[in-house]
Amino acid sequence: MKNKFYQYIQILQDQICKGLEDIDGQAKFRQDLWERPEGGGGRTRVIENGAVIEKGGVNISAVHGALPKAMQTYFNVGEVDFFACGLSLVIHPKNPMVPTVHANWRYFEMYDPSTPPGASDRKVINSWFGGGQDLTPYYLFEEDAKHFHETCKTACDKHSPEFYPKFKKQCDEYFWNAHRDEARGIGGLFFDHCQATEDMTMDNWYDFVTEVGNSFLTAYLPIVERRKDLPYTEANRIWQEIRRGRYVEFNLVHDKGTLFGLKTNGRIESILMSLPPHVQWVYDHHPEAGSQEEKLLNILANPVEWI
Amino acid sequence: MKNKFYQYIQILQDQICKGLEDIDGQAKFRQDLWERPEGGGGRTRVIENGAVIEKGGVNISAVHGALPKAMQTYFNVGEVDFFACGLSLVIHPKNPMVPTVHANWRYFEMYDPSTPPGASDRKVINSWFGGGQDLTPYYLFEEDAKHFHETCKTACDKHSPEFYPKFKKQCDEYFWNAHRDEARGIGGLFFDHCQATEDMTMDNWYDFVTEVGNSFLTAYLPIVERRKDLPYTEANRIWQEIRRGRYVEFNLVHDKGTLFGLKTNGRIESILMSLPPHVQWVYDHHPEAGSQEEKLLNILANPVEWI
Repeated sequence: MKNKFYQYIQILQDQICKGLEDIDGQAKFRQDLWERPEGGGGRTRVIENGAVIEKGGVNISAVHGALPKAMQTYFNVGEVDFFACGLSLVIHPKNPMVPTVHANWRYFEMYDPSTPPGASDRKVINSWFGGGQDLTPYYLFEEDAKHFHETCKTACDKHSPEFYPKFKKQCDEYFWNAHRDEARGIGGLFFDHCQATEDMTMDNWYDFVTEVGNSFLTAYLPIVERRKDLPYTEANRIWQEIRRGRYVEFNLVHDKGTLFGLKTNGRIESILMSLPPHVQWVYDHHPEAGSQEEKLLNILANPVEWI
Repeated sequence: MKNKFYQYIQILQDQICKGLEDIDGQAKFRQDLWERPEGGGGRTRVIENGAVIEKGGVNISAVHGALPKAMQTYFNVGEVDFFACGLSLVIHPKNPMVPTVHANWRYFEMYDPSTPPGASDRKVINSWFGGGQDLTPYYLFEEDAKHFHETCKTACDKHSPEFYPKFKKQCDEYFWNAHRDEARGIGGLFFDHCQATEDMTMDNWYDFVTEVGNSFLTAYLPIVERRKDLPYTEANRIWQEIRRGRYVEFNLVHDKGTLFGLKTNGRIESILMSLPPHVQWVYDHHPEAGSQEEKLLNILANPVEWI
């Protein structure tokens, strides 16, 4: 499974980078290959200062070795070996009318450390998939929110009618900026610890996760296409930079993915490529009553059922 | 002691705000009074868009009540009542040649909760002072680093010859941005859990902490005066904004003061006033070999003995 999924995310990375370069029309991804001293490494691809994308990263990594102490505590396990691979992306567009998007699809295995790495009979103690995709608008176009969620639902419904409501709710809960008492964005899907059950084999989960991965460009590109050439003002841009500050706060204070990267000695620049290019913090900022900016805040205070 | 120290920080807040307004010459602090639902509150003073200070806050607070669960774990105590008051300041100047400065002086008490609040015989289980002041330059002027540290040392030496070396070292250790493997700035003083001992009564600690508090303007203002009118380029400004990104990373990932504020239901805007106004994250940025920017990074990689 780990080889099959790692193959998949390599191809998906190519497809997503191609789709994003095409819509940008100007900037290209640069690639950095990196190695993790304790085992594994990654292929980081970053795009900056494009016509459409101000900054973005579409990264894959596959890391393995002894599970670090901090992660043992986190997963509540003893000394085990692990393998983890995944694709992680964040796109920060320049135009404040285009939402930021984040997605991640990952696979995790834990092994009994008494069998040596590479042994054909190596015992997998536990394995699971996780991931999702979510949208963070600066100005809310309901049409965009609905399109994004409908694409998510279509992908989910092919596998179970229970998945969209469940993973949509988990997304709203996970991307909650608790100290601000508001959502990071308008959500999407979030799933974790997707393990083999009576209903779902690991192959079934693979099919589901790759279905979601394959839906990403369908979910995001039409929104970019519709909004990338809309006019915007300096005030719109300031609002975008202030909201990006909330994105930074979520990622550095609450995000478990960032934590995982930092605790497993991941490559810092690959982990923190998620941080936006230009950001502002203005003391006690409140948008004008009745403004578009205030409308967004009201939406973020109470997650919406978009479908 | 708690009343005496809270009196002191009220007066110090006035003095420091006055000193900073005078050197800015343009902007004035705005004041927000706030109350903590569980007990206490604060007096937040923020200055923005000045001639010299781009953004800064000089805040005092005094909070009390039942120690929140998360803080019980942190302090390794059971259910106790607490009182905490302090002054916390961060100043982000506009000119990249002027360093950012941070300072904090605080007092903490814990009580046996079996005696009611306000009881004259209320048993103080534990009490301590903490605090310090530290400098974060974007361009290094050794003269400034030496002046700042000499002022710190002068204040320390009046109380013990051991204090400056000890608290300077603790400052270098505390303001270490571990995931970047570099210091946040060029340090200063950091002390915590300053409790009554054979050598130091709580009154002695009060005298020491207020000595440091009184030294703040002497430590910082001459540096601002020397650098505030120096010319700078757009490239200098970009470097300042990138380095401010590291400041954000430290405060949101590592800083215990920020954590304490978030966990004790402090006022978010008062806690996060420490975040800089304009910030950039550039993927995998490295300054040119031999540049002033690279010189700063080399200094931050290995804390320096400035005296």
